[in-house]
Order: sequence, then C-alpha cells, then structure tokens
Amino acid sequence: MRVGVLTGGGDCPGLNAVIRAVVRKGVRQHGFEFLGYRDGWRGPLEGVTMELGVEQCRGILPRGGTILGSSRTNPFKIDDGVQRIKDNLARDGVGALVAIGGEDTLGVATKLADLGVNVVGVPKTIDNDLSGTDFTFGFDTAVNIATEAIDRLHTTAESHHRVLVVEVMGRHAGWIALHSGIAGGASAVLIPEQPFDINAVCELVETRFRSEYAPIIVVSEGAMPAEGGDMTLQSGQKDEFGHVRLGGIGDRLAGEIEKRTGKEARAVVLGHVQRGGTPTAFDRWLATRFGLQAIDAVADGEFGTMVALRGTKIIRVPLIEGTGELKVVSPEEYAEAEVFFG
Amino acid sequence: MRVGVLTGGGDCPGLNAVIRAVVRKGVRQHGFEFLGYRDGWRGPLEGVTMELGVEQCRGILPRGGTILGSSRTNPFKIDDGVQRIKDNLARDGVGALVAIGGEDTLGVATKLADLGVNVVGVPKTIDNDLSGTDFTFGFDTAVNIATEAIDRLHTTAESHHRVLVVEVMGRHAGWIALHSGIAGGASAVLIPEQPFDINAVCELVETRFRSEYAPIIVVSEGAMPAEGGDMTLQSGQKDEFGHVRLGGIGDRLAGEIEKRTGKEARAVVLGHVQRGGTPTAFDRWLATRFGLQAIDAVADGEFGTMVALRGTKIIRVPLIEGTGELKVVSPEEYAEAEVFFG
Amino acid sequence: MRVGVLTGGGDCPGLNAVIRAVVRKGVRQHGFEFLGYRDGWRGPLEGVTMELGVEQCRGILPRGGTILGSSRTNPFKIDDGVQRIKDNLARDGVGALVAIGGEDTLGVATKLADLGVNVVGVPKTIDNDLSGTDFTFGFDTAVNIATEAIDRLHTTAESHHRVLVVEVMGRHAGWIALHSGIAGGASAVLIPEQPFDINAVCELVETRFRSEYAPIIVVSEGAMPAEGGDMTLQSGQKDEFGHVRLGGIGDRLAGEIEKRTGKEARAVVLGHVQRGGTPTAFDRWLATRFGLQAIDAVADGEFGTMVALRGTKIIRVPLIEGTGELKVVSPEEYAEAEVFFG
Amino acid sequence: MRVGVLTGGGDCPGLNAVIRAVVRKGVRQHGFEFLGYRDGWRGPLEGVTMELGVEQCRGILPRGGTILGSSRTNPFKIDDGVQRIKDNLARDGVGALVAIGGEDTLGVATKLADLGVNVVGVPKTIDNDLSGTDFTFGFDTAVNIATEAIDRLHTTAESHHRVLVVEVMGRHAGWIALHSGIAGGASAVLIPEQPFDINAVCELVETRFRSEYAPIIVVSEGAMPAEGGDMTLQSGQKDEFGHVRLGGIGDRLAGEIEKRTGKEARAVVLGHVQRGGTPTAFDRWLATRFGLQAIDAVADGEFGTMVALRGTKIIRVPLIEGTGELKVVSPEEYAEAEVFFG
Repeated sequence: MRVGVLTGGGDCPGLNAVIRAVVRKGVRQHGFEFLGYRDGWRGPLEGVTMELGVEQCRGILPRGGTILGSSRTNPFKIDDGVQRIKDNLARDGVGALVAIGGEDTLGVATKLADLGVNVVGVPKTIDNDLSGTDFTFGFDTAVNIATEAIDRLHTTAESHHRVLVVEVMGRHAGWIALHSGIAGGASAVLIPEQPFDINAVCELVETRFRSEYAPIIVVSEGAMPAEGGDMTLQSGQKDEFGHVRLGGIGDRLAGEIEKRTGKEARAVVLGHVQRGGTPTAFDRWLATRFGLQAIDAVADGEFGTMVALRGTKIIRVPLIEGTGELKVVSPEEYAEAEVFFG
Repeated sequence: MRVGVLTGGGDCPGLNAVIRAVVRKGVRQHGFEFLGYRDGWRGPLEGVTMELGVEQCRGILPRGGTILGSSRTNPFKIDDGVQRIKDNLARDGVGALVAIGGEDTLGVATKLADLGVNVVGVPKTIDNDLSGTDFTFGFDTAVNIATEAIDRLHTTAESHHRVLVVEVMGRHAGWIALHSGIAGGASAVLIPEQPFDINAVCELVETRFRSEYAPIIVVSEGAMPAEGGDMTLQSGQKDEFGHVRLGGIGDRLAGEIEKRTGKEARAVVLGHVQRGGTPTAFDRWLATRFGLQAIDAVADGEFGTMVALRGTKIIRVPLIEGTGELKVVSPEEYAEAEVFFG
Repeated sequence: MRVGVLTGGGDCPGLNAVIRAVVRKGVRQHGFEFLGYRDGWRGPLEGVTMELGVEQCRGILPRGGTILGSSRTNPFKIDDGVQRIKDNLARDGVGALVAIGGEDTLGVATKLADLGVNVVGVPKTIDNDLSGTDFTFGFDTAVNIATEAIDRLHTTAESHHRVLVVEVMGRHAGWIALHSGIAGGASAVLIPEQPFDINAVCELVETRFRSEYAPIIVVSEGAMPAEGGDMTLQSGQKDEFGHVRLGGIGDRLAGEIEKRTGKEARAVVLGHVQRGGTPTAFDRWLATRFGLQAIDAVADGEFGTMVALRGTKIIRVPLIEGTGELKVVSPEEYAEAEVFFG
Repeated sequence: MRVGVLTGGGDCPGLNAVIRAVVRKGVRQHGFEFLGYRDGWRGPLEGVTMELGVEQCRGILPRGGTILGSSRTNPFKIDDGVQRIKDNLARDGVGALVAIGGEDTLGVATKLADLGVNVVGVPKTIDNDLSGTDFTFGFDTAVNIATEAIDRLHTTAESHHRVLVVEVMGRHAGWIALHSGIAGGASAVLIPEQPFDINAVCELVETRFRSEYAPIIVVSEGAMPAEGGDMTLQSGQKDEFGHVRLGGIGDRLAGEIEKRTGKEARAVVLGHVQRGGTPTAFDRWLATRFGLQAIDAVADGEFGTMVALRGTKIIRVPLIEGTGELKVVSPEEYAEAEVFFG
C-alpha cells in the first residue's frame, strides 16, 4: 500500500521525528510505500507532492521544522476541496493518510474520515491543549526554552531591582506559562483560564520587593485581566502593520505594573523561538513513539483514530476526542502553583 | 508540627526542587516547622541537623545536588540504628519525616514506617527503575544529557568512519539507554534486561557502514553479552595513547567490535555528568509537584506512603509499591525501538 | 589596604566572575581587605555597603548578575556628589576603588581619577563597543544566545516560508548583530553604523525565496533606514506606557517587508534574555583575568587605568582610552560579511 | 580557476563553516570552481573527490564534523605519494588547494608547498596548540563543553563530599584544561607542561575539604606526575561495580587520591564529546573568517601561507610558523590560575 504523509499548522519541534518513525517502520515492517504531501492540506488539495522514503528521513530526527513544509490551508473552505483531495489521493494511488497537526489540521482529518477518507491523526501542538493525550510533542521543548529564559532573567531582575514580565505562547491554554513558571520559580503565572486581578498582581510585586527579591511574572499571550480590573488592556488591537503582538499583554502588563507600583518593569516576549529548533529528548521520544503507533494503526486499518499518550503507553483514540474540546488548565492545577506566588 | 527532611543515595537533579516545595507549602499552607537532617539516614542516626526554612530554600530550584547532603548510610546495618533514629527524632521534636531517595533510602523508610515512624517517601532515581510511578525526577535530565552527547558524537562518527559506543548509566534497568538511544538516533541500544549477541551487534555495524553511515551504539553500564556470545571481555589492552582504557562494558564492547569488524571503534563513558547540574524543566516540575504532594500526605497523616506520577496526576501509593520490585524495560518496549537498529 | 568594589550600568554575564577574581587574588596574594559598595556609584555616594570577602564570593563564578547590585546613578549630576564619595571612602577607610562598568560608569571613574580618587576600571558591556580592548566580557554570552535563537528560527522560517526578523541588542554598535548574524547564517545583518536601504533588503528577501530558502534578517535595535529609503520608521516613538520598544525596529521592519514583498514576516525581539544568566566559558575566563589584572594594578598603584584584552594578553590602558570614543563596526568589517547576504 | 578543498586530522567543530566560507566567497567574488577531496590527504592521493559548490554547503554552518570526511593519511609515508598527488591535481585541473587541518595535515601542506604545490592552510585543532594564531576554531566549543561538565559535577561533589577528577583533551598542551578549569572554578588544573606533585595535589584536596567544599580537579590527558612523585599508576584495580576503570591519567589520579586521602574520588573522562557537534558562535565566526581569508589568499596567489587570528584581525603567516613548534601554556599563564587552586 502507498501511504501519504502531511504536516499542518504552526511549527513544532518533533514533526520530523514523527515523519521518520512513520516511514522507517512503514517500510521496514509493513512494506508500505510513502508519498509526501507538501504544506499541510495544500498538498493533497493541489496535488503538490515530494518523494518520501527512508533516504529522505536520514538525519532529520534532531532537526526542528518539517521537511514536508506546512500551511493553514483548509479544504473545507475551498470549493470542491474535499472532492479534489479524494481525486488527488486516487490519482496518486494513496490508500491512507497520516495527518500530523493540531486542532485545525486534525479537525479537517476528522471530517474527511467521516467522508470516507482513510486517515490516521497525530496530535501536534506546543501549547499542549489537545484533549485525549497526556502531552503533545513540542510542548516540552517550548517549556524548556521558556524556563531557560526565566533562569537568565532572574539575575537581571535581582541586579536591577526590576520587575520582569515574560510573555510565553498559549492563546487559549496556560500550559506553557504554568509549567515554565513552576520550573523557573516565577513570582506569578497569569493564564487565559483565570482572568487576573491587576491589583493582586501589583500586591505580589510589592510583597516580593519587601522580601528583597525582584519578581518575575510569566504571562500567557492569551491571559486577560478580570472584568472591572480597571486595567485598560483592549487586547487584539492591531498595530499599523496589522500585527497583534505589538502592545501584547506582556508589554501592557509591564507598563501597567510600572505605572501602579513605581517599580521599573520590562517585558520579554519569547515569540517564535519557542516553536523552532531541535526537540528535547522527551519530545523526540514521544514524537517517535507517536509515529510508530500511527503507522501501525494504518496497518490495522484503524482509520478515524489519532494516537495519544496515556501514562507511558501510546494508545489510539477516536479523532473526535482530540479535536472535540480544548484541554485547559483546571482551577485545581492552577491552585497547586499558587503557593509559590509572591 | 515539626517535620524532618532528608535526601539519600546518589545525586539526582531535582532534589532541591523537592525540598523547596515541601518547605514552601509546609510553612505557608500547613504552618509546619522544618528541620533538615544531613547526609541521608546519617542525619537522624547521628543527630546531624541543619536549619531548614523558606530562607534556606531561596534560589535552590535550578540547582543540582542537595543542600542537605547525601550518603548511603543504612541504619539497619548499625547496632541500635533504629532506636537511635527514634530517640533523635523525639529529642528534636520531629513528628514526621519526608525521606527523598531511591531503592535503598525508601527501603529503610518502608521498614521504619512498619516500626511506627511517621514517614512519607519521595521516589528519586535518575535510572527511572522505581515501580509505582510513571517517571522519577532526574531521569529526564540524564536522558537529555546523554542525548546531547549522542548528537555530538554523530558528526565525529560520520567524519571519521568510526564506531562510537556510548556507555550511559543504568546498572539494572536500561531506561536511560533506551530513551537516549531513541532520541539520539542510535544504531543499537544494549540494556541489562536483554543480554546481547555480540555477533548480531557486529552485523549491525557492518550493515550501517554498507549504507555509508557510521554507527552509534548506546549501552547501559549493566548490559552484558548473552551466554556463549563468545565475547572475551579481556582488559589490559592499550588504546592509541597507551592508556589502559578497556574496562567497563563500553570500553570492552568498543574493543571487541574493533577486533571483530576491523572498524575503528571508540567508547565514551558519560559517568557522573549524567547526575549533576541543573534539572530540566520537566524534572523541576515533577520534583516540585512530588514535594507538594508529599507534605500534603504528611498533613493528612498518610504515613507509610510515597508520592507517584500517574499520567499527569500526582498520587500516593504504599511505600512498598515503589520498593518492592524494580521497574525494568519490558520485551515489548525494547522491541518497539528495534525498527531503528542497524 | 582596604579596597572598595562596585558594579554599575546594565546587567552583564561575568560581573560576578570579576568580583570573585579581584577578591580572591587581593586577599590571597596582596593581603587586601575588601568592602562592597552596592548599586554602582550609589554605594559610595550614599555609603551603602556590604561585606565582601572570599566567603561572599563562593559559588558566584557561574552566576549571572552581580552580588553587588547595580544602578545608573551618576554622582556628577548630584550636588556635592564627588565630595560625598570622597568623604564616604575616607570614612570607610577605603584607599582604592575597583569600578566595573561600561561607558557611563567608567566615565565617572575617569573624572574621579582626575580629581584624585584612586580608581582602577574594568570595562563591561555586552555590546562590545568600548575602545581599548579587543573584547569585553558578556559579549560572547549575548552572541551565543542570539545565535541559538537564530538556529531555532531557521526551521520555522523554512517550514512556513516566512521572513523572520531577529532584533538583537546594540543601540550604537552592531557587534552582536554582526557576530550572531555570521554565526547564525543570516541572510542580512542591519547595524547602526550602516543605514540600510529597505529596497535592497526586500530584494534580498525575494532572492532568498527564489532559491527556495526563507530569509532570517538580524537587526540591531539601533539600526536605521537610509535617508530617503522611503520607509516610515520614526524610531524613538513611545507607546502609551512610555516604552520605546513597542514598534521597535524589528517589528517595524517585519511589517514593512510584509507590506512590500507580500511575504509573511514575523519579528522576534530577544531583549533582556541576552544580558542575563550564566556566562559562557570565554566570558568567565576573560572576566576572571580582568579581575586578576585589576587588583594587580591596584597593588602597583597604577590608578586611572583600566584593564583590556589585546590578543591573548591582559594589559592596562589609561581609562580615557576606553571611554574616549565608541568602538563601532568598520565598513571593512561589515563588508566581510556581505558575501553571505541574500 | 578550480580550487580543491580537503579536511584532515581529528574532528573539530567549525570545519564545515570554513568549507562554506571558502566556497561561498570563492564562487561569488572570485568566480572560482571547487572540487572536494575526501578524507584529508587520501583524497588527492587516491583521487577520491566529491562535488563541492554553494549547494553542497547549504545548512552546514551549524553542523559539526566535515562533509568532506577526514583521515590521518600522510602522503610522505607512501611511495610516490607526492607525485601521485601532483598527478591527480593536474588530472582534476585543480590549480590550488585549501588544506584545513592540524599539525600533521599542515605539516604535509608545508612540505608540498616547498615542492611547488599551490596550497593555503587553515589551522585546525581543538587543543589550541598551533603557533602563529591567537586561537584556533573548535577550541572554544571544547572548552564550553568541558566547562558545562564541570558545572554539573560541582553539585555532585558537594552533595557526596567526593573528589571529582575531570580528564579533558590535550596530549601536549593544557589549554583546554586551563581555560575550562578557570571557567569552571576547579580546585586544581594539571597540564602536560607542568609535571604535578601528587603530594601537593592531595594537600589541595585536604584543604578544600577542611573549608567544607568538595574539590574538582581538571587534568589534561597528557598530564604526568613529576619524577619521584611517588605515584604508582598501577592499573587493574576494580571500581565499585567491578569495572576495571583505572587506565588513563584521570582514572589513575582519582585512584591515587582516594588511596592517599581516604576521600572517595571519581573520574569522568569527557573524551570525544569534546570534539563533535555544533560549534559555538565564536568558533563559527572564527572558522568563517578563516575561510574568507584563505580563499582571498588563493586569489592573491599567496601560497605556502596559512591564515591566523591576531587580536581581532585575520592575517596570513608562512605555513611553517604554525607547524614549526607547538604553542604550549607558559609558566606565567599557568601561575595566573594558581590563586584559585585549593
């Protein structure tokens, strides 16, 4: 059988490790042939392919990015999108697809599976907000990068008696902020799931300085102040170039803290550095095992499923489980960290 | 209540993170006082203590080692050892103990719990071979250090058409070798659970060279050749600098491969570098959550238990679960990786 | 004799290494006593001191920041500032000062030396723009952090066919941008010394995409477009919180490139991460040797001098040499890198 | 003109950066063609070549190793070796050679230049022991790897009250040991240039323990005890796991210290990890600038020269300068570090 492979959505360390594992095991143990589809769903939609075999996968394990390229193309937003995909798969003699991606990419996979396309999904997001799996690959790398940045900022905060605000990724879920905040010893962690009280944040800042230590505040890009928090933070504002990041929550929060406490405050926005480059050992191991399980699912004809981590086991769950609803930080999980705040 | 804390056994990144979390939550949420016992069980045995409070725990989160010191002292091998510990705890007004350690340290804790000492255990080993928990802190750090070393050795192997053998820690379990071997893209992984066939290993080496890539072989310090494997682990051979370096399994294996295949082979023994220094974000997060759960167990009077990771939850299990039998790599888990060998 | 030590200006990896070396050699070989002045020139000005001896310097070698704290206080902008410093030094029985800092801190030291204060300077700036020395400590660390970020961004740029703009520190000199751009394989490096032509930059972007590779552009925070470059980049604009960084050159350049080329462009502003945390081996070695030479200069009574690196030797030069004029990137040095652009 | 490029000797981070710079500038600014010779002098000797152009050099800047392969083949030890090289160069239409290597490789280049071969040398050694240049690329990477290892070992030494001996590379020169020892805060640094007194080393160990800190001793692989130092480097002793690990100077020294002081001592032999993997920013910058200068030398017809770093400038010197005599640590440079010992 010939199997197609594609990667969609934002960059994520471990994508190449998945591709390598899928191909290596597919060729060696299942005797499959492979075809690479370029740039996510754009590949099968427009029939843009690349050769994909053991040779193409040599040396890619430690590399970030994806040799297949990526995009956010959604075939359901294009006339005849689905039909064109079916036609191209037929033309290419591709009997099954392995789709590696996040909410959007797997959302498409879920619908295509209902429409009779043989697809197996591999969950991917550095935000770790996909349901059905304990962790997603890319998350551990992002958390380590954020933690190393926090480690470095501690000394500057101390030496300059400054407040340092670190804005990390996470538009809807605060996992990166929570894990890197705990690992980095942050004085406060602000996440989208828990609208924050700017007054409480400023109190933490004052407390911290009274104990003669400078505070580091980790904030998810999607964090918001509570209603009536009296903080003018109309997020989503676009700058002259249409960038939302300018005046993002990190910079605004630093400005607000400086205004209210009189303490010098600076923001660092980690941005894309969190999603590129070589994966950590954990992410390479998880991505590799996801790939092995995904191609086995193809061999078993278990389509419409995605692979997932449960404890130390890799299992298969219905695609809908991963894409149905977002996995966010629970109040209990957030409360666990609060003992370290201030 | 006054709580004693001790760390025993080999060094492990994350020990300080556990201590910090135990003290921080104990003081802030449970109103406990703390006393540090130095050098594992030697502390309560000989009454060697140190002040332990929020202040002593400042800035220790990212540091390797343990501010309490460690040792392999076993009170059950000393006359009146147990009684002396009971007397010292009483004298110090210590009503409960948090014991952070591996098989030996927790083995002592288990027996002391049976003898009426109020103790809660925190599992610690870079080898990840304690039962009852998905992972132990320190393991992720060790695996990342080993993986970075493998990444570096790949280029040397390729450039010099050499075989490189990397000996990693793991006397009884091959977890570090298996995870770093998968993450580093090793050509073979040899572990204690699976006696290896030296002929098969040499065949892998030949195959690898035929495909014009140099092999990297990861071997646990406890790995051994199968009976009749006809591998003469003779030592005393001199390397290119006249150093008698053949000794551990890594050096012996390199020597044997060179002798049998005629390919230049070198061994790198990572040693103690794997167990020192700053913990990864994952280990800081896990160690911190272990500490929080352990002090809650003390507050709940749930003695004779140890904390454990199950999926993403921290639970409590009877101490005996963690110390009863070693968690080793199963044949299925090992087989999973074999598709990458050669 | 009793020697005072202070650190002024922005944070810089290696400050603690200098302090440690000054104290270690001063105590062990010259029999000096030491007094720490807190927060740069504020210390001697306001008489804010701390104990400083071999004990206080234990374990600080690998740590970023400065145990003495820092500030930008300038005694020449304060009534009787100089006299108050002289009085405090006399009161504290301090016969000589070691001042570790950049242009401003050493500028004050230069003037104080002319007014009869016994001071030896140690040049410090991550920007590497102090004259009289081949390199300053902190620079190598900043360049490595920037280079690692560029390494990570390459994969994202490739996978998403995006332009990535990396804004690094350097208000007046482009050393960090030039070195990290060369080390990271950037498609273009824009520095303050060479006003850039936005049209030429966009041509590089197009060229790069034609060869099917995504461009990474490294830009110093102080880089500016050439006159008539028809790019609306009124830098120095303040946002609602008085931060100049919002809409800094990185974000503006990304926006402009996106507008002109139609290619998706994103900016990453590394910010304070470049100046915190543990120093590289090179910076620890240079900072340590600076410290050893500085205290020898004190012992020799060679005041009004600063230490400097020339080749592999540490020498002493008049303070004015380091503070007289800024060391910037020469047209020849910039031209050397241009072969890699595009 | 067609230019040949080869890399010889041991692996060294930065080799690919040199190749890339030579080719990039040679093609873009001098209009040269290139031919890659494989595995050092074996390439031109046996006529083993590979295609080498801008395309082959894409993405190799951050990679360790060498895309050309390496070997220690010496044409002067082979009948007609020189003539065969001349014939092959003529056959391949190669008018000039860029030879990148250490003492041996450049030694051959020096002799070939005298025999009329148009060759320019690029000095390469992680040991930094080539004369005529302030530093060689690869050295900074090796020193950083050794320093990170020392950082990690500190915590283990402290926690276990152990002596840790770190054996680093350097058979004839102690540069790696000296720089990493200073950067890592070692209690002693033992180098080949200064035969050590085992009694003095053991005294340092005792002193260090008296001040309640565990010692880390960095030793070059080529370090030796002084005559009559009464150190019996007997091998064959078994360590705690029954491994015969006593072999190189590191293991022997650890055994001797343990025997004499009664303190537990362990050795870590860093080995090949020091010479593989991605180069630091400094090494990428130096290697790149070496490559640019080397191809300019070819364009200028300045054969028989090698490139060198002097301060911040890249210059050309006669090949003989780099290969004439080894650059070792002077007594003054060693004495500079002694203030930190003990």
